[in-house]
Amino acid sequence: MENKTSKEIVIPSYEDIIEAHKRIGNYVHRTPVLTSKNLNELAKCSLFFKCENFQKTGSFKARGAMNAVLSLPKDKLANGVATHSSGNHAQALAFAAKIVGTKATIVMPRTAPKPKINSVASLNAEIIFCEPTLKSREETLSEVVEKTGAVVIHPYDNPFVIAGQGTCAKELFEDGYKLDFILAPVGGGGLLSGTSISTKFLSKNTKIFGVEPEGANDAYKSFRDNKIYPSVNPQTIADGLLTSLSERTFKIIKHNVDDIITVSEEMILQAMFLIFERLKIVVEPSGAVPFAGVLQHNTIFEKKKVGIILSGGNVDLSKMPFH
Amino acid sequence: MENKTSKEIVIPSYEDIIEAHKRIGNYVHRTPVLTSKNLNELAKCSLFFKCENFQKTGSFKARGAMNAVLSLPKDKLANGVATHSSGNHAQALAFAAKIVGTKATIVMPRTAPKPKINSVASLNAEIIFCEPTLKSREETLSEVVEKTGAVVIHPYDNPFVIAGQGTCAKELFEDGYKLDFILAPVGGGGLLSGTSISTKFLSKNTKIFGVEPEGANDAYKSFRDNKIYPSVNPQTIADGLLTSLSERTFKIIKHNVDDIITVSEEMILQAMFLIFERLKIVVEPSGAVPFAGVLQHNTIFEKKKVGIILSGGNVDLSKMPFH
Repeated sequence: MENKTSKEIVIPSYEDIIEAHKRIGNYVHRTPVLTSKNLNELAKCSLFFKCENFQKTGSFKARGAMNAVLSLPKDKLANGVATHSSGNHAQALAFAAKIVGTKATIVMPRTAPKPKINSVASLNAEIIFCEPTLKSREETLSEVVEKTGAVVIHPYDNPFVIAGQGTCAKELFEDGYKLDFILAPVGGGGLLSGTSISTKFLSKNTKIFGVEPEGANDAYKSFRDNKIYPSVNPQTIADGLLTSLSERTFKIIKHNVDDIITVSEEMILQAMFLIFERLKIVVEPSGAVPFAGVLQHNTIFEKKKVGIILSGGNVDLSKMPFH
Repeated sequence: MENKTSKEIVIPSYEDIIEAHKRIGNYVHRTPVLTSKNLNELAKCSLFFKCENFQKTGSFKARGAMNAVLSLPKDKLANGVATHSSGNHAQALAFAAKIVGTKATIVMPRTAPKPKINSVASLNAEIIFCEPTLKSREETLSEVVEKTGAVVIHPYDNPFVIAGQGTCAKELFEDGYKLDFILAPVGGGGLLSGTSISTKFLSKNTKIFGVEPEGANDAYKSFRDNKIYPSVNPQTIADGLLTSLSERTFKIIKHNVDDIITVSEEMILQAMFLIFERLKIVVEPSGAVPFAGVLQHNTIFEKKKVGIILSGGNVDLSKMPFH
């Protein structure tokens, strides 16, 4: 990746994704693609589920974090890495740090769910608890950096993270799937950005869609009005999609993505249950959002070949309304 | 399979399992084997999960039903097939009948769970409801047979069904796994019988264990005391393991199986949750029973290579105590 002047935003190229793939290939899974006749009949199209729920740490985030950490020069790595996250990026960064033998410090809100805290702790990361506000998260992270000199790895506003996430769609096309559409969930836009760069390069006729919950539709509005709306008080069960686009991810998405569609909470749950019931795999609500998009906007996808990035499987089953 | 005089019990041979595999190969999946470093560390042994939850109709039962139906002479097939079942065999027989183009009639207790009724109905089988007692099930099935001339396919006391179930372990050994142990759940003993015949032939040093819930331990007692105990008022969440051994399955199990161990309800649930959480796949309680055996009787399996037949994934999530 080239150095740019401070004003310019670094955008990863497809070459950066190739480099990322070489770098992380020994540490992350090449995940399988599942299909289901039954779901195809139900959705009236051909679905190809790229199963990042089977990825290391249970989500695609391991790709980006691994690439970012492996790309750091040795002297910078020595002081460790840090982030604030209560979700999949926390586990991914802890995992990557463990592999390269450096320390990860994760700032987590004290209200974070126990299973997530346990996962991060089991990967030997140090957890610093803060209040459950963005302000407290950022201040606490600043303190950590000041004290330790750790490098902050942002969950999505980082070109190496974006390049790592792009390896997922790269595998899908390399495996020979000819797709009319590729769908990824949108939170901060790291996965959708990486997916769009790989897709534009490898399969230029494939339409690239982001899918977002109606109750957290900041990316949808940003795409529509061509300006970034922050995510304010998002209300959705898809806890991985609460964040706002960054200037970097917005720029990439605006340039590459064909559309962003939104889905209702009911459809997210229905999609999640169908994946449990028919594919027999565990998916988190955020990971079910693209399939919900196919169900809710069915006429767009009828009779088409649709790639679905099933982004993760870290779900707290006790919180799901199975009844 | 040779014809025997009426008094003699027909026991399938490994050759019958080879034949079964050829017969059903185009219609059922060769299921994947999953491993997890994380679960290996937890269980202190090397685990190989043979994923029959990904099998057609969501359980290994598709193998046996398919083999039994494909083995029927054309003239017998013409009148259709029938069984009484509220579980996985019902779906499997409906599936097999649909493939060969004959009719399946399934006698189901009127209390059977809605999702199971829907699955059977969606496979075009005719459902006849009866009272939820064995007497009513058997009487209703007799009436069906009398009226239609349908062939009854028993869920496990049928040599073709047993030979079909044996193809699962056959695949595991053919895939090159060298196992110290192979574990299957025991209900009526069809899967364990088939597994034991394949294992004895393909890997004679592999120990064969059946695993059963403590609250439905009739096979355990039968094995111990060398006489068949019926399953009386079984109490377990593992709804696939409520049935009793038949003379045929008892004879095979006595001859081939090294031991039957039992597991607590708590351990079944813990095993099921661990499989959800770490393997990210959906397993039904009965399917989690062998892994529960490894967890509960850990010293037996320490540092060994253990094959686990994860028998199915048809679980009613709304009934699971996730809280």
